[in-house]
Amino acid sequence: MLRCSRCGRTYPETFRLTCDCGGTLLVEGPGAGFTPFGHLDMRRYLAHLPIGSLVPVPVPGITPISEIEVGRVRAIFKLEYLHPSGSFKDRGTWVTVAKLLGEGIDEVVLDSSGNAALSFALYALPAGIKLHAFISYDARREKVLLLQKLGAIVHYVEGDRTVIHERAREYAEEKGLTYVTHWLNPYFIEGTKTIAFEVFEQFGVPDYAFAPTGSGTLLLGLWKGFRELKEMGEIAELPRLVAVQASGYESLCERSPFTNSLADGIAIPRPPRLDDMRRALRETNGMCVSVSRSETEGALSWLKRAGFLVEPTSAVALAGLWKLIETGEIPDGSSALLPLTGSGLKLTEGI
Amino acid sequence: MLRCSRCGRTYPETFRLTCDCGGTLLVEGPGAGFTPFGHLDMRRYLAHLPIGSLVPVPVPGITPISEIEVGRVRAIFKLEYLHPSGSFKDRGTWVTVAKLLGEGIDEVVLDSSGNAALSFALYALPAGIKLHAFISYDARREKVLLLQKLGAIVHYVEGDRTVIHERAREYAEEKGLTYVTHWLNPYFIEGTKTIAFEVFEQFGVPDYAFAPTGSGTLLLGLWKGFRELKEMGEIAELPRLVAVQASGYESLCERSPFTNSLADGIAIPRPPRLDDMRRALRETNGMCVSVSRSETEGALSWLKRAGFLVEPTSAVALAGLWKLIETGEIPDGSSALLPLTGSGLKLTEGI
Ligand SMILES: [Zn+2]
Ligand SMILES: [Zn+2]
Repeated sequence: MLRCSRCGRTYPETFRLTCDCGGTLLVEGPGAGFTPFGHLDMRRYLAHLPIGSLVPVPVPGITPISEIEVGRVRAIFKLEYLHPSGSFKDRGTWVTVAKLLGEGIDEVVLDSSGNAALSFALYALPAGIKLHAFISYDARREKVLLLQKLGAIVHYVEGDRTVIHERAREYAEEKGLTYVTHWLNPYFIEGTKTIAFEVFEQFGVPDYAFAPTGSGTLLLGLWKGFRELKEMGEIAELPRLVAVQASGYESLCERSPFTNSLADGIAIPRPPRLDDMRRALRETNGMCVSVSRSETEGALSWLKRAGFLVEPTSAVALAGLWKLIETGEIPDGSSALLPLTGSGLKLTEGI
Repeated sequence: MLRCSRCGRTYPETFRLTCDCGGTLLVEGPGAGFTPFGHLDMRRYLAHLPIGSLVPVPVPGITPISEIEVGRVRAIFKLEYLHPSGSFKDRGTWVTVAKLLGEGIDEVVLDSSGNAALSFALYALPAGIKLHAFISYDARREKVLLLQKLGAIVHYVEGDRTVIHERAREYAEEKGLTYVTHWLNPYFIEGTKTIAFEVFEQFGVPDYAFAPTGSGTLLLGLWKGFRELKEMGEIAELPRLVAVQASGYESLCERSPFTNSLADGIAIPRPPRLDDMRRALRETNGMCVSVSRSETEGALSWLKRAGFLVEPTSAVALAGLWKLIETGEIPDGSSALLPLTGSGLKLTEGI
């Protein structure tokens, strides 16, 4: 069942982005006991995912964790960049593609030239789903090339992110195609929530869970995953969520006058799920922290020396942790989950 | 205990590359029951690895498998490119670095500009081990840059692979440093054998196990892993091993007049573990197949469309399977393991 976060109206579990009232949707689970089973990959959590037996290939694996002391805080890095397309987005994509396959939808539209589009293209191609990707003329040439090699039909748009979004939506409506933006898609969050399931199996419940936060899919996935574990009686408390944002692009923290354009994966100043994100922070006694370009650079360099070749957006979580340790908001002896969201390998020159 | 494959002499389990007779070494296990335990990463097999409690970070994870019908053969692709450095080599590196840490060795020499060097540099840096990398002037600039960013001291050598190898060995001797080439290192194979352990847990025992084969570390790792499972009474039969080589660089198959330089990871015409490799094929009733550049290209393209962004060397396994299906050597209804060894993401332009 899908439930509207604004008016509470429910819908059956078909593919749908928003409530008729305009509110955002989340999947409501059956709330049975937690039963990870058999497979050493995402199929382990099939009982807790809104999909049937049609399972896309490849199947995202269980990403490893690395525990490292950061100051006097125990950091649990989760290597979410070790997925087939190089980012955590494969989890949400996988559930979404499974849903689309189940409904026989074979042509979709999305607007992104980043990790979400690459991830979708990678799973859509073997699933036989035709993908229209609406992207900016400014998009990096090698990214566009890779999308095309993966069979995506690229539509160039002149204008900012909002214009591209509008064009994609219009095109989908005109042609009667399904629009699948992960900014709204409730099934995307279902995939992302499995990060919480894995962390619970690998470590337990950390005191804090950090999430680089732009559109909020990672923050909301962590919130939903730990919340379900609590509803299933597995854990007593949720971790306190920490949304880490990029300076100049804040939606939850106060907007800064300087911009951190290095973390382009979360440079989303007006995300549509803002109310959901606020609720997640409120319910977990969470907080928000914003980091600058130079703080991000410092964290990226530290991560490289620790053995993690990640993209800059991944580094903001550590930059946020440093900042909150310094201000005393994260006390000594705490544990903190830091998902490393995207691979640096595609950007070898820039690491 | 280390045992010489040529004369049978044994040595204690310290870091050592060859027997005094010049023969190659393998670790001999205690042969207890198979006890994968707890962790959802390589630590799961600690009881079967020749290392103590000093465990390097990051820890390589359990890579997912994808089962796909290739003709009438059930192919089990194992996504070995989803490791922190982008290749299966992280498994062998991880065990090696653990061993070096355990012995207090903090400065080493290796000769490689490929995946092995990148993998070693990535784990050596957080472990505080200084790495001297001997590489050719021809090595790709971005690879060298990444090695340097990971703290490796690069020594350029003019000459072919054999000359580079000699210079590295001489330097190590001169300076009293440890030489850690994975071509000989028995601990590297200990790491690689965990691929077999995981496949056993994820799927069972396939009829065939393919390995892109140059230096033979993957072939020997698969052989040793399945052999240990048999010795521990877990399985009745080993899979038949299939060494897939690149045209013009064959060491096990007959040498072809044309060269397949696309699969540069296995372009090793005179590997030092040749006797071990022959024994592995003989003991498993295995076989060898050699593939051309165009066969490799075809397989790479198929893999991309199936959702696997891998480097060309990874594709030879599938090219070899196609060839053996065509000749009837692999019958309908068989199952075949195909490890995908290296990521294509670092070579985005070239995919
Ligand atoms: Zn509503
Ligand atoms: Zn000997």
